[in-house]
Amino acid sequence: MLSNHLQNGIETAKMVWSRIPNAEEGDHEDAGLLRKSDGSSVESLEYEVVENHAYWEEQDQRGKLFLVYYVVVKWFFALLIGIGTGLAAVFINLSVENFAGWKFALTFSIIQKSYVAGFIVYVLINLVLVLSSVYIITHFAPAAAGSGIPEIKGYLNGVDIHGVLLFRTLIGKIFGSIGSVGGGLALGKEGPLVHTGACIASLLGQGGSTKYHLSSRWLQIFKSDRDRRDLVTCGCAAGVAAAFRAPVGGVLFALEEVTSWWRSQLMWRVFFTSAIVAVVVRTAMGWCKSGNCGHFGSGGFIIWDISGGQEDYSFEELLPMAVIGVIGGLLGALFNQLTLYISYWRRNHLHKKGNRVKIIEACLVSLITSIISFGLPLLRKCSPCPDSDPDSGLECPRPPGMYGNYVNFYCSKEKEYNDLATIFFNTQDDAIRNLFSAKTIHEFSAQSLLTFLVMFYTLAVVTFGTAVPAGQFVPGIMIGSTYGRLVGMFVVNFYKKLSIEEGTYALLGAASFLGGSMRMTVSLCVIMVEITNNLKLLPLIMLVLLISKAVGDAFNEGLYEEQARLRGIPLLESKPKYQMRKMTAKEACGQRVVSFPRVVKVADIVSILRSNKHNGFPVIDHTRIGETLVIGLMPRSHLLVLLQSKVDFQLSPLPSDPRPGSRPIRHTPSEFVKPASSKGISIEDIHLSSDDLEMYIDLAPFLNPSPYIVPEDMSLTKVYNLFRQLGLRHIFVVPRPSRVIGLITRKDLLIEDSEESDTVELQSTSISAS
Amino acid sequence: MLSNHLQNGIETAKMVWSRIPNAEEGDHEDAGLLRKSDGSSVESLEYEVVENHAYWEEQDQRGKLFLVYYVVVKWFFALLIGIGTGLAAVFINLSVENFAGWKFALTFSIIQKSYVAGFIVYVLINLVLVLSSVYIITHFAPAAAGSGIPEIKGYLNGVDIHGVLLFRTLIGKIFGSIGSVGGGLALGKEGPLVHTGACIASLLGQGGSTKYHLSSRWLQIFKSDRDRRDLVTCGCAAGVAAAFRAPVGGVLFALEEVTSWWRSQLMWRVFFTSAIVAVVVRTAMGWCKSGNCGHFGSGGFIIWDISGGQEDYSFEELLPMAVIGVIGGLLGALFNQLTLYISYWRRNHLHKKGNRVKIIEACLVSLITSIISFGLPLLRKCSPCPDSDPDSGLECPRPPGMYGNYVNFYCSKEKEYNDLATIFFNTQDDAIRNLFSAKTIHEFSAQSLLTFLVMFYTLAVVTFGTAVPAGQFVPGIMIGSTYGRLVGMFVVNFYKKLSIEEGTYALLGAASFLGGSMRMTVSLCVIMVEITNNLKLLPLIMLVLLISKAVGDAFNEGLYEEQARLRGIPLLESKPKYQMRKMTAKEACGQRVVSFPRVVKVADIVSILRSNKHNGFPVIDHTRIGETLVIGLMPRSHLLVLLQSKVDFQLSPLPSDPRPGSRPIRHTPSEFVKPASSKGISIEDIHLSSDDLEMYIDLAPFLNPSPYIVPEDMSLTKVYNLFRQLGLRHIFVVPRPSRVIGLITRKDLLIEDSEESDTVELQSTSISAS
Repeated sequence: MLSNHLQNGIETAKMVWSRIPNAEEGDHEDAGLLRKSDGSSVESLEYEVVENHAYWEEQDQRGKLFLVYYVVVKWFFALLIGIGTGLAAVFINLSVENFAGWKFALTFSIIQKSYVAGFIVYVLINLVLVLSSVYIITHFAPAAAGSGIPEIKGYLNGVDIHGVLLFRTLIGKIFGSIGSVGGGLALGKEGPLVHTGACIASLLGQGGSTKYHLSSRWLQIFKSDRDRRDLVTCGCAAGVAAAFRAPVGGVLFALEEVTSWWRSQLMWRVFFTSAIVAVVVRTAMGWCKSGNCGHFGSGGFIIWDISGGQEDYSFEELLPMAVIGVIGGLLGALFNQLTLYISYWRRNHLHKKGNRVKIIEACLVSLITSIISFGLPLLRKCSPCPDSDPDSGLECPRPPGMYGNYVNFYCSKEKEYNDLATIFFNTQDDAIRNLFSAKTIHEFSAQSLLTFLVMFYTLAVVTFGTAVPAGQFVPGIMIGSTYGRLVGMFVVNFYKKLSIEEGTYALLGAASFLGGSMRMTVSLCVIMVEITNNLKLLPLIMLVLLISKAVGDAFNEGLYEEQARLRGIPLLESKPKYQMRKMTAKEACGQRVVSFPRVVKVADIVSILRSNKHNGFPVIDHTRIGETLVIGLMPRSHLLVLLQSKVDFQLSPLPSDPRPGSRPIRHTPSEFVKPASSKGISIEDIHLSSDDLEMYIDLAPFLNPSPYIVPEDMSLTKVYNLFRQLGLRHIFVVPRPSRVIGLITRKDLLIEDSEESDTVELQSTSISAS
Repeated sequence: MLSNHLQNGIETAKMVWSRIPNAEEGDHEDAGLLRKSDGSSVESLEYEVVENHAYWEEQDQRGKLFLVYYVVVKWFFALLIGIGTGLAAVFINLSVENFAGWKFALTFSIIQKSYVAGFIVYVLINLVLVLSSVYIITHFAPAAAGSGIPEIKGYLNGVDIHGVLLFRTLIGKIFGSIGSVGGGLALGKEGPLVHTGACIASLLGQGGSTKYHLSSRWLQIFKSDRDRRDLVTCGCAAGVAAAFRAPVGGVLFALEEVTSWWRSQLMWRVFFTSAIVAVVVRTAMGWCKSGNCGHFGSGGFIIWDISGGQEDYSFEELLPMAVIGVIGGLLGALFNQLTLYISYWRRNHLHKKGNRVKIIEACLVSLITSIISFGLPLLRKCSPCPDSDPDSGLECPRPPGMYGNYVNFYCSKEKEYNDLATIFFNTQDDAIRNLFSAKTIHEFSAQSLLTFLVMFYTLAVVTFGTAVPAGQFVPGIMIGSTYGRLVGMFVVNFYKKLSIEEGTYALLGAASFLGGSMRMTVSLCVIMVEITNNLKLLPLIMLVLLISKAVGDAFNEGLYEEQARLRGIPLLESKPKYQMRKMTAKEACGQRVVSFPRVVKVADIVSILRSNKHNGFPVIDHTRIGETLVIGLMPRSHLLVLLQSKVDFQLSPLPSDPRPGSRPIRHTPSEFVKPASSKGISIEDIHLSSDDLEMYIDLAPFLNPSPYIVPEDMSLTKVYNLFRQLGLRHIFVVPRPSRVIGLITRKDLLIEDSEESDTVELQSTSISAS
């Protein structure tokens, strides 16, 4: 039925197309978002990549060798991501601990003489650290502000925000978060570490940063979007694994929270990356234990060990635990809502006034934070030390400048401690350790905890959205464990059992707030278990999370989704919307379709590309008997490459010689690959002479010959699922077909490996026959 | 372009079709496998179910009420599955522990007088237990043999093997595994528990067993395959959570090993189910601790606590650990291969000779197992007790009939124990506890461990595939921990450090063997951590698993995949096959397409249904201008329902009145629902008079109006992904379209909630306009 030359044209297209690695579709979003996501994502790109290499065509043997090379490189990359993220985490932690440790040691030594001088030094150090952070962000790496998780989530959903995975963003994130966390702001370093991991992975995938002359050619085999996405997924998991020393939690976080297309093969590789991170971090910790790393050895990485705490729980305790869950859900949802409003206001009124305003804002926040964290404990009366139990290893008051409970701060008598200073005038890691600590019943007064809760909650809300790298995990844990411990105090007083530990309730509080704000479930649960090293509390954490997430869901979406939406990242949810059920595919198509003929005048291409922002164009040809036929999809980006290179221009308006092989292939597949971290070319960048405009291009060799199609009256929910599940960029809506050539069922797709040679034989015969 | 009456016919079809819950497609596999899996699986069936209810059409308000009811029932079911599976697990464990405990207590008391009498009693008790198990399986519930995991995996992949989820299978599984595990065979109760959980879930989903008059009407709202699949997934997770007291492990097992279509919304519900199981089991354990449950209180549920063991590890230890990984990979792959051969041989030569052979076989295996486990320790010389440390709580020899290390069995002197009896003449749970135990260096001699390894490995291979419920987890742990401890002994001797515990190596060995045989990664890792209650060994377990899986993968597939293939369950892997890359959709279509016209003679339907086994038929109509048009897919099962009920037969060969609403709808949607646990109707069951055969049916209201379509020359890998990712049963292969009506991009699918009313308005206008 197809005329011969058309058939051959399509064959050529299939040949060439299959050699382009991320050869599917691209889409300009109107919002200025740009991404080249491929539908071939879910195809077996391992084999497609094999095809790209010239020598593959020569013989199978060498192709298989390349496949082995490809797999080895893939695992080697997983190893490198693990090592890189682990080292970055160690570096950030080491720097933060040393800056903060040195800051507190200095302040404590000065306040022995003068509290005013100590206050000024404390404020100044914090200010300098925050200033350095905000300066890096505003002048060097604007994309490194915030936690980065919404952006990464968007990237893995198919939306690429410019600049998120650049080398400068990586550098800005690392040094920025050292400044912002070391400077004592109410934010954490865990979210930024996830972003750091993702950046490392992405840079590896493109063979280093091109701008800074770091790329190496032999690593550049990951050109398809699916490969890059897989690497970034590994990077996210590595980030969480490094941030919390929680390898399983990292895998689950990547799975539950960030990825949109998950394959079980990937799990294995992600898991490997996490394991590597765990080993790297453990090695570094071991090395630091001998005192090589300054303050880092004693404080250091998150593991708030409560394995020595509460062993068992009774059924009466379930009620207060449920109460914690409800509080967590309410406070978490409120947090999301407040940060949403403030971010919105900030974006529209503050941040568009330029970098200077951002810097002033961050410095102001730092000042307020310093004043509150220093000033409030001053107002608080000290409490006498409890009768110390020499076995517990708790010293009261602790020696100045050291880590631990029972801080002596502005106390008049010898054996006294300041409970507000113990949590407020401290690094967050140590504060949480103190809040989680067992065998310290009644260390904190309800008044102090309440004061701290209100102040810190406010600070966390205000700090969120300033132009510094900022995670919400640790502040969330701080807030949660405070009210958790508060509830725990009442429980201890009410039930009067010795086996109940306030620290356990603090942990549950932390879980509940994170659940109420971020709405993660399994991953959060595992992370909490891993950071506290106590498996026995697992069912309790589960219970609290169930309640807090359910309560939170009644009010709004999770923190990351809210923020992603605010930033204009159009995430496709996994579920189709309710109203899609009543719509058909035809009704959903927004714009008029603009299609190209097979051979098209250059001037026409230019005018069409200028006049609309569509990102893919159907290509239509005529058979000899005059029927029209859709022969494929031409992505805008490929058109731009063709216009820029000009080598495929021809004078004749007829199709070029259709026999494959008769004309030299003038494009290498890599020309069609968009670099991951640049905007690609735009039609405005291309300058064509008037002679060029009069020439023609035969599009057949460059189009995607078989995009996915749906009939016009298919329900939109079905279309949505097709689009979402396969990670597509374009679907053609076509009229109902006039006949069915065949039916594919499960049986047809169960090709046994043993039949391989036969099938391929058969298939090649049928091609030559056609 | 469509003629009016056709358009209306299609509208009617869409209306009616949307009211049929699992209304997509069905497929008879030639292998005699039968399943009704729906493509609507991935559609938003929550809403589709809403549509089924008559009152939905009346007003939106009540529809939303139903939606709330539906969600509540969904969570209530998750709760019930958790409670049911938890109780089943408690019941099985309680029975097994009591049977086995009583058996060993009796035997020990008899052998004080006579070893011969003790031997006879021991053998007889085992024989009776195994006989009861195999009798139940062969005469009552044949589908309950084996572990059931390959079958469940098949079900969740879209292949339903008859009988796997019946009520009788559930009963058979529970009582059968009590007999087989209590009878001391080399198999475990964990795999069967997964199957038990899945059965409970499936029965709940269909509102109880219809056959045993247990169904209740108000629970029967889960009629779509997706809902059932979700429930079964919950059941699997609950099974693992109950079997190992590993709730997180259960979720991950369901995710990694059994499901084929995973949605992140489901994770939350699965997680909830697991949490419920954990609470139920914990409550039961607490109740039993007070001595209400006989032998159960002291032994009981798996938690081989090694938290008191090795705290740290040095880098030199990584080498022997890697060796363990390699051994695990090799032995695991060998296990898979041997069991594959033996199962194959058994199926073709032994089991087709009838139930009597199966019973004799199981009894023979039981006899051999009893003789070996009693006889071999007799031949072993006793060792003198080590200098006992009163703090360790270990008694040597332990009191007869109690649990613990250092069994006195056929020892001549007072202070002696028999190391082979300590692992062999014991329940498997206790044996593993002894192998994992810390602070018992040199308890076992290398000779005993080696003897046990060889004998038990052989027994496990031989037992696998007998007609009793049999899990491979615990035998795998037994085998693995034996060689692990063996390696540990060498390490202890070689490095001469006191901090190294043989028990740690036993654990790693267990992980390595399971990894080498089942090829699970993250889930296995988490399960191992949860059952040993020791998080510190996580990186080591990861390392060992990585190695053993990689080594095993070099030889063959995982145990479950091998077994599924052997049983003819055609699992669609997540990755398309290599050779698909070069094939097109058209080439893959196996059989000639048989299509129906819109109005078809009953006799034609009957003859077509008789003459082929196709499971879906395109329906083709003509427009007024004579063009043909594919109007939908008619599943075989719906045709059978129509033929059986006869109410839609008509005399005229013209379409029935096409206006929707003008004819009474004679079918309730539930008529088209195939019960989950029966074979459905077959064409041979339907008897039609010759008058009937002369009549006609208008298929338009009953067909699926928009199945997924692909163009004929689309690459088969793309088709495979579409099929696999969306869980389809049929895809139409159609000619290239002649024009493109529209293009759907990400933007078109981002409908905001706020626009809801507008969009719906707009859409209903456009329908009435057409």
